[in-house]
Formats: sequence, C-alpha cells, structure tokens
Amino acid sequence: MAEGEAGTFSRGRVETFSDGVFAIIVTLLVLEIRVPAIGNPESTNELARSLAALLPKVLSWVTSFFTVCVIWVNHHRLFRMFRCIDHGLFWWNATLLLFVSFIPFPTALMGDYLANPVAVSCYGLVMGCMAMSFFLLRRHVIRNGALLREEIDAHVFAMGTKYALLFGPLPYLAGAAAGWMHPFISLAIYLAIPVYFIFPHSTQDV
Amino acid sequence: MAEGEAGTFSRGRVETFSDGVFAIIVTLLVLEIRVPAIGNPESTNELARSLAALLPKVLSWVTSFFTVCVIWVNHHRLFRMFRCIDHGLFWWNATLLLFVSFIPFPTALMGDYLANPVAVSCYGLVMGCMAMSFFLLRRHVIRNGALLREEIDAHVFAMGTKYALLFGPLPYLAGAAAGWMHPFISLAIYLAIPVYFIFPHSTQDV
Amino acid sequence: MAEGEAGTFSRGRVETFSDGVFAIIVTLLVLEIRVPAIGNPESTNELARSLAALLPKVLSWVTSFFTVCVIWVNHHRLFRMFRCIDHGLFWWNATLLLFVSFIPFPTALMGDYLANPVAVSCYGLVMGCMAMSFFLLRRHVIRNGALLREEIDAHVFAMGTKYALLFGPLPYLAGAAAGWMHPFISLAIYLAIPVYFIFPHSTQDV
Amino acid sequence: MAEGEAGTFSRGRVETFSDGVFAIIVTLLVLEIRVPAIGNPESTNELARSLAALLPKVLSWVTSFFTVCVIWVNHHRLFRMFRCIDHGLFWWNATLLLFVSFIPFPTALMGDYLANPVAVSCYGLVMGCMAMSFFLLRRHVIRNGALLREEIDAHVFAMGTKYALLFGPLPYLAGAAAGWMHPFISLAIYLAIPVYFIFPHSTQDV
Repeated sequence: MAEGEAGTFSRGRVETFSDGVFAIIVTLLVLEIRVPAIGNPESTNELARSLAALLPKVLSWVTSFFTVCVIWVNHHRLFRMFRCIDHGLFWWNATLLLFVSFIPFPTALMGDYLANPVAVSCYGLVMGCMAMSFFLLRRHVIRNGALLREEIDAHVFAMGTKYALLFGPLPYLAGAAAGWMHPFISLAIYLAIPVYFIFPHSTQDV
Repeated sequence: MAEGEAGTFSRGRVETFSDGVFAIIVTLLVLEIRVPAIGNPESTNELARSLAALLPKVLSWVTSFFTVCVIWVNHHRLFRMFRCIDHGLFWWNATLLLFVSFIPFPTALMGDYLANPVAVSCYGLVMGCMAMSFFLLRRHVIRNGALLREEIDAHVFAMGTKYALLFGPLPYLAGAAAGWMHPFISLAIYLAIPVYFIFPHSTQDV
Repeated sequence: MAEGEAGTFSRGRVETFSDGVFAIIVTLLVLEIRVPAIGNPESTNELARSLAALLPKVLSWVTSFFTVCVIWVNHHRLFRMFRCIDHGLFWWNATLLLFVSFIPFPTALMGDYLANPVAVSCYGLVMGCMAMSFFLLRRHVIRNGALLREEIDAHVFAMGTKYALLFGPLPYLAGAAAGWMHPFISLAIYLAIPVYFIFPHSTQDV
Repeated sequence: MAEGEAGTFSRGRVETFSDGVFAIIVTLLVLEIRVPAIGNPESTNELARSLAALLPKVLSWVTSFFTVCVIWVNHHRLFRMFRCIDHGLFWWNATLLLFVSFIPFPTALMGDYLANPVAVSCYGLVMGCMAMSFFLLRRHVIRNGALLREEIDAHVFAMGTKYALLFGPLPYLAGAAAGWMHPFISLAIYLAIPVYFIFPHSTQDV
C-alpha cells in the first residue's frame, strides 16, 4: 500500500487540505463579531458600552479559537503516525473536517444566546460529534494496522484511542447536559477542555 | 516539455492553488447558515424551533461539503497522472475552479428555496457544468498525450474519460430535470452522487 | 545574496503566502453574489426573474475570476525567474497583493452599478494600479540584477518589463476612460484583457 | 529534541498553518469595505460622493494590510532561527495568531468610528497585545535555548528580544493613549510603525 498506489492518497496533499480548512476556520470565527452600530458615532461612552456588550461573543470566540488549535495539534500528532492515507481514512478525515468547518455556527450561536441552554448545548453536541469523528478515525486505523508507521506500537495506539473516547466526546456531552443546569457551567467545561490540552500531560503523547 | 520550460507550469503550485480554492470553498459553505434572530433570547422553545427550521440549509450544506470533497479526490487522482501542466490544462483547471468556487451560491439558493424547482435545478446545472469541465480537461489531456506520465495507459485514461462523462454531467442534468417533478427527487440524486463515490467502485480507479 | 542570508526571504514562503492570497481572493469574489429575497418562495417565475437580474454580478465575477487567474499565471512565471527575494522585492510584491486583495470591492461595485461610469472606471483604476505594481516590481528587479537567476537574459527581461507596462496599466486606463462613453465598452475591454492572455502569444513568454 | 520527537511539532506544518492565517486575514480585511447603497444607481455624483465617504475605511484597511505584512515578515525571520517547535512555542505562536486573527475587528471599528477615541484606542490595544505575544514568544525561546539553531548567537537574540519589546507594544500603547488627544495622532503612529519596518534598519536583522 505504498504512496502512489491506486486507492491511496498523498499524505502531503491531505494534510495541506486539512491545514487549509483549520487555518480558514480559525480566522473565519472572528467574522461573527461585528462592529456595533451606535446612535452618536462620536460618543465614547456609548461605544465603550456597546463594545463591553460584545464580551459573550469574544469569550465564545476565544474558546473556539483555542479549541480549533487543539484539534489541529491532535490532527498533526495523529497524522504523523500514518504511513499512508487509504480511502476510509480519507473519508473519516472528511467527516472530522465537516464538523470542524461547522464550528463557526455554534460559536456564533453561543455568542448570541449565551444564556440560552439550547445554544450552549448545541455547541457541546457539535464538538462532541467532532471528537467522536477523531475516535472513529482512530478505530478505522486500528482495524487497518498497515496504515500505521512501523515504529508505532499498535497497542499504545489502541490505548490512545480509548483515551480519545474518554477525553473527547464525553466531556463535551457532559458540557451539553450541564447547559440545562446553568449555561456558565457548560462554558467553563468548554474552556477547560482546550486548557487541559494546552498544559501537557503524559496521555497526550499517545 | 520538462518542468520549467516556457509555457508549462509547476504542478506543485497549480495543485497548491487548487487545494487552496477547495479548502476555502468547503469552509465558506457554512457561512450561509446564519444564526437565527428570535424574539425572546432566553426561550429554549423558540430557539429550538428556529434551529429546526435551518434543516434544509444544513442538508444543502452537507450535500455540497461531501460533493466538494469528492471533487477534491477526483482532482487529486487526476493530477497525479500528469507529468506537467501546459497552458491549456491550466485554463481547463481554472474553468473547473470557476464552477467549484461558484458552489456556495447554488448551495445557499437551494437551502433557502428547497421547495422551488428553479433553485433545485440551478444547483444541478452548476454541478453539471463543473462535471463537464472535468470531462473537457481530460479530453485536452487525451489530445496532448505527452502530458500523461509514462506509466499511465492512454487507453485506460480514455476509458476513464468516457466514465467521467457518464457519471459526471449526466446524473446532475437528470437531477436538475427531476426538480420539476419533485425537488426532493433532485436532492436525493445530488446526495446519492457523492455517496456513490465515497463507497469505492472499480470505475473510480481509472 | 544566498537563501537564508539576512535581508532575504525564502522564495517558497513568499510564494505560498502569495498563492494563499490569490486562492482566497478568487473564492471570495463569489460571496458578493447573494441569494435574492423573493416574496413567494415557491414561485418559479419570480425566482427565475430575480436570478436573471443577477446577470451583471455574474458577468463582473467571471471577469474578475479569470483576471485573478491571469495575475496568478504572470506572478508564477515572474517569480520562477528569481533567485531570491530581497527586502524591496518583498514589499513590491506586498503592494501588488494589496491591489489584488482589493479586487472584490470594485468587482462588487461594478456588479451593483454596471450602468454607472464611476463604478466601471473604479474597476479599471484598481486594475491599473495592480498592473502598475507588476511593472514597478519588475523595474526593481532590473535595478537589482542579482535577483534574477543566471540563465535569465537580463535584456529579454527588460523587454518583457516594457511589454508589462504596455499590456498592463494602459488597457485598464483606456477601459476606465471608455466608461464615460459607454460602460459596456469598458466591460468589453476588461473581459478582453484576460482572454488575450488565456490564448497564448509569444510576448507572454518574456 | 530532534524533529519528530514526542512533544515537538513539524516546523513546516506550523509555518504553513501560520501562513494560512496571515494570508486569510490580509484578504478578509477588505470585506469590511462594503459597496455603498445609493438612491439613484445611475448618478455619478452620488456614487462618487459615497465612495469618497469610504476613505476612512480605506485608510484603516491599508494600515492593517501593511501591518499584517510586517507581522508576517517578523514571523518569517523569527521562525527561520528555530531548530524545532516545542509545546510552549506552539502555544505562544497560537496566542500571537489569536490577536492577528482578531485584527479585522478593530480595523473595521476604526474605519467606522475614526473620530472616536475608543475605537482608535481599541486598535492600538489589540496591536499592542499582538506585539506583546511576539515578545513573550521570544522570551520562551530564550529560556529554552535548545530551540535556537546552532548558528544563532543567543546573546544577539536576547538583544533583539529587548528591541521587540521597545519597538512593539510600546508604540502601540502610545498610539492608543494619543487617541484621547486626537484620533489622527494615533492613526499617524499606527501608519508610521509598518512604514518604519518597511524601510529597513539594522535593528531588524537581529
């Protein structure tokens, strides 16, 4: 199943395509924060107050920005372990990118309706689907061991896949559920997830 | 006609340019799904109902997302067979990218007017033109055989070109026509085309 | 002035950055064509008529799409002749990209006000500035001959620079002026310029 | 800490991701300049006057365009000195990109409210945070000397880091403060900063 064989993809072009999607999403997120319209354009008070009112959108944007960066890091680490990209791996990656490219919508929704449990849960559900795609992509690789580079221990990879299930969809589903108690609990969970990944742990290297 | 000769292009930069267009289109598609404005920002019922009303847009977006991924796959497989890019090949590729970069418009149109045959047909016509560009690009390569890498069988490539006509513009034109019977038949056809490509068949490898 | 020396840039990263800008501009252009809002969402007549009313925008978009592709081709051919990128070359390239990244604005303006000479002239003036940047970039290279690769004949390059002045800013300024006689003469000139470049001539290879 | 070791990143993919963000931001900036709506579409006077009214937005856009180019240049020069990217360096770079990707917002804000000190200060504060990230990123590298390529003098790098503090956040904070005297003083400072970098000085090569 060497590079160039029918049915496989160049890892380079798949990574470039994915990186393109990540870079675009991370930059498009800010477009949802729009310049406020105020009555008197020269009033500093009015402008300052309407900028302060954008705080929920800024919070929502920062959360998504660092989350997409964490997804990029995980994607980068994962793809470095692959020898080549087969048909199935390509489409699991496309499914992952589908949910990643959807992120601007729940981000804007949560920014607009931060006090509404539906908006906050929607964010968690989309992120949960995204994290689930990571798990399913890894499971496809476990079932097709030849996709892994020789120096990667298949057993360690399988362990990492279990962690990916435990630290991926589960916290997001918990966050989505917590939104019905209080939206701010969800937001705290959504912010904690990238923060957990940014400060490195041993489990991340799997 | 070696790389670097006057009149030819670096395959790398043409692929990077094309990949950029694909990655941007696939991510821009979601911008057409806008956060709904509701009367009472804290009403979960109202927000849930207005999110449910976005379903046609989501369906339209998912269809286009996977379609653009299929186009990327076909583009990737095709360009891997080329030794170099001449003037004509560059401009057929540009024509293909013209229709690809237009996809957000019919996607949004179909998302907004899913029950309107004009909107549904418009989607099929644009996709049909896109698929036709693939066929014309391949025909240009058949007429300039030196563009193909030596290990590619010109006869097999010519067969694949016929398949590209049969499985490309024709189903989209059928979908565009079916919209006048019932728009959902078109949508089913538009969804079936990428699904057909995602589950691999022998004809794809040509 | 070898790659890696202080004051020079990696040609690879400058080309990647430029290609990114080209790919994004070429795809953003279509965002200016918005789905029309109609009274009765199921009326095929009304939707067909409002789509037909988008024709000036589509014409404007197609013109700009192929123009940006021609700019990319010229950029690609030009940069292939350079041994390295110095400080001045980088900033002339940035000036060129400034005008390229501005193209969506005059394109949308001309699409909205095709019958207004101001809109049509504005398009020509922006394109003229863009073409002028190409000329000034080339002149910088002539004055710093060490930037050219050894196998490039400096005399032929200087001739090509004169052509770049003649076939670049001049036709666009002519187009901008013609808009005051009749906007459609301008549009014909703007369309003719990329068409002239798409069908190859000997002067292009300089 | 060689390339490929656990905990490090491929410099290539981090640069590609960053370049993607820079290229997208530089091109998105123009989207904030929208085609004006006028009463009589064929009136050249009305259109010319409403285009002239866009001048503050154009000024704001040009300032940000060249500023992002200067950031790209600094990023390019900096990353060329690194042997590899560790966890901390990646996240300082992500923080830098967070502020870079935010630039379209203060740019549009300043374009809309050029006479309002709040808008003008906001621009300086965001740019100051961006410049501060550069300084913190460099400080991380000083503390982890193994990240620098062998031929880079650590002492010279430390000097350059002090310059990065002096010529980075400080002028932007000065600009933000000056906005309360007169917004045009701020704008002059914001424009002067990229102009200073565009015309090369010895300190830049550090």
